[in-house]
Amino acid sequence: MGEAGLQYLAEAREQTGLPIVTEIMDPSLINIVCQYADVLQVGARNMQNYTLLNAVGQSQHPVLLKRGMSSTIQELLMAADYILSHGNRRVMLCERGIRTFETATRNTFDLNAIPVLKQQTHLPVLADPSHATGKSEYVEAASRAAIAAGADGLIIEVHMDPPNAASDGRQSLRPERFAALVGQLSRIAEAVDRSV
Amino acid sequence: MGEAGLQYLAEAREQTGLPIVTEIMDPSLINIVCQYADVLQVGARNMQNYTLLNAVGQSQHPVLLKRGMSSTIQELLMAADYILSHGNRRVMLCERGIRTFETATRNTFDLNAIPVLKQQTHLPVLADPSHATGKSEYVEAASRAAIAAGADGLIIEVHMDPPNAASDGRQSLRPERFAALVGQLSRIAEAVDRSV
Amino acid sequence: MGEAGLQYLAEAREQTGLPIVTEIMDPSLINIVCQYADVLQVGARNMQNYTLLNAVGQSQHPVLLKRGMSSTIQELLMAADYILSHGNRRVMLCERGIRTFETATRNTFDLNAIPVLKQQTHLPVLADPSHATGKSEYVEAASRAAIAAGADGLIIEVHMDPPNAASDGRQSLRPERFAALVGQLSRIAEAVDRSV
Amino acid sequence: MGEAGLQYLAEAREQTGLPIVTEIMDPSLINIVCQYADVLQVGARNMQNYTLLNAVGQSQHPVLLKRGMSSTIQELLMAADYILSHGNRRVMLCERGIRTFETATRNTFDLNAIPVLKQQTHLPVLADPSHATGKSEYVEAASRAAIAAGADGLIIEVHMDPPNAASDGRQSLRPERFAALVGQLSRIAEAVDRSV
Repeated sequence: MGEAGLQYLAEAREQTGLPIVTEIMDPSLINIVCQYADVLQVGARNMQNYTLLNAVGQSQHPVLLKRGMSSTIQELLMAADYILSHGNRRVMLCERGIRTFETATRNTFDLNAIPVLKQQTHLPVLADPSHATGKSEYVEAASRAAIAAGADGLIIEVHMDPPNAASDGRQSLRPERFAALVGQLSRIAEAVDRSV
Repeated sequence: MGEAGLQYLAEAREQTGLPIVTEIMDPSLINIVCQYADVLQVGARNMQNYTLLNAVGQSQHPVLLKRGMSSTIQELLMAADYILSHGNRRVMLCERGIRTFETATRNTFDLNAIPVLKQQTHLPVLADPSHATGKSEYVEAASRAAIAAGADGLIIEVHMDPPNAASDGRQSLRPERFAALVGQLSRIAEAVDRSV
Repeated sequence: MGEAGLQYLAEAREQTGLPIVTEIMDPSLINIVCQYADVLQVGARNMQNYTLLNAVGQSQHPVLLKRGMSSTIQELLMAADYILSHGNRRVMLCERGIRTFETATRNTFDLNAIPVLKQQTHLPVLADPSHATGKSEYVEAASRAAIAAGADGLIIEVHMDPPNAASDGRQSLRPERFAALVGQLSRIAEAVDRSV
Repeated sequence: MGEAGLQYLAEAREQTGLPIVTEIMDPSLINIVCQYADVLQVGARNMQNYTLLNAVGQSQHPVLLKRGMSSTIQELLMAADYILSHGNRRVMLCERGIRTFETATRNTFDLNAIPVLKQQTHLPVLADPSHATGKSEYVEAASRAAIAAGADGLIIEVHMDPPNAASDGRQSLRPERFAALVGQLSRIAEAVDRSV
């Protein structure tokens, strides 16, 4: 994302009051991205990019670390350790689906990863049902499952006009479906003695 | 399972009033097994054993068909078609975890399979959180997720004394944990407008 | 395969003098198939069909056991043990490709399985480059590799008219390409101090 | 690798006359590494690190691009395109084993990738039997297979004292076994009308 893109993020943050998460790929851009983003996302393809992990660790900025598409849960925890080792303890982990032989969905949502991670670390554990399914018609079910399994948060792609989205439209919810989903999730969170 | 084993099942059914599900592996035993079992289970290793699929189809007995450990969802549906093609429409499908590179759990619970199957067929869709995780400490989370995702039923292994179980003790719940789980599941079922 | 099919096999054997390998799927047909076939093949989908493994073990007939599409090498050896445990020691193992995320080929040819099996057992180790690749244009390269790695034999699909084959035409060689391949394989076998 | 490490590489190159291949992980070090190395290696974990791919593309230095451990062949070709798009056409591809369910070897050597890549690109195709097997006892067989399948080159780990190697000793050959292997490979290359 170029500086123009960052400027849009800044505007979006100002107008909505929402915090911004954005992906960082180039270690040399960390200082500027930290000015515009509240959380630095390390994407699945870079989960073992140690140069980048060290850089976001040194930044002391909150980090959202996504599991590599064929990384084991243990490798995800070891990647987090690169960040933690710089004294940056604000790390969130995210299960976003793994690569298997199944082709009915874009990825295979490894639901087990949620309770395994909750047992093995005290870091927050998020799930990304949009990437984990790749198809909007399955996002609600996967979201409900993630919350029921104990996830601390979700990343869900939303778009006003999914068929014309620049990327990932196939897995994006329209705002009204997203709003209805939040209602459902709230009920499930209560049923497992959590709040949304 | 020999005839003595079947006799035990008959006694268990009589004493408890519970219906019996048992695995059938040898097509030549179908008639005798149908006398003792209410449901014939076709195991994951036999999901593409066409001789067996045809035999349980001809039996007209209810069938619980488990997904092969590396079978696609489409292949599961095609295996069900072998049974349905004999006019036996009492078929239940079961997601029980697939084989992937992840070793933290015995199998990878393909949670996505539940909404995909619910969309593609009207057959009941079950989940087996015991096999899908292989470790009792994760069975509750996976069970909650399955119900939240829309599963019509669960298969959960329970044993009075898991460390001394003849098989699968590692993934078995003690009765008191099972009872507590049923309570949790009931709350989640309500939250998604289902009943247990 | 019905009895008519078996009759064709018998004619083919008589006219050509070639020994016959054919797949057995139904344990109740073993006696009749043994009359017509020199080797009983247990297919990948039945590698863990224990009823069938026991039956071919009891038959004392030579067996060609194919690796399941997602079976580990260790599981293949354990399946062979079911046959060997009946005193039937004439068992050949066959690597035929495993299921992975790669879609450029029908299966992924696990070349490593050849040296691993050669180290862990004294049973003959075959490879099936036709299924391991699924596309005829890659069959020659995979065949050469298998022989160079130490395979004791190959199963290669050949058809006079692949586009019109009843099954597996996409991976079948025409006779003239097969003949040329045998010449290449002979040279490689010599280079690794084997003979064809 | 720090500057001291690079200095060792320079000495090794001077004393032996051998060209040097070394892995680059940090885009900001490209200029200095280009002074010491003849070829820049992009490792499997960085195959989709686009910042790094662009940097090595701009360098115009020869590049050895290793396949990601769960990348498809198509994704490997697309990663190469990032480098080629900067006008740097000196790119070699390397199959180094993929991640599957099999645990008998460190990775699964996707032998099929060699003929598929040879068909789809004119770039040189290498294989890394050391990583593809992870165990020195299988390296010779995998090396022979790769040459027989048409690989243009091999990367083989060699160490004077494997049990005490700083890394990857389990998959390293001693020099005398490496020398013997080169002799075998020469014979196979001749058998497929290539030279070593």
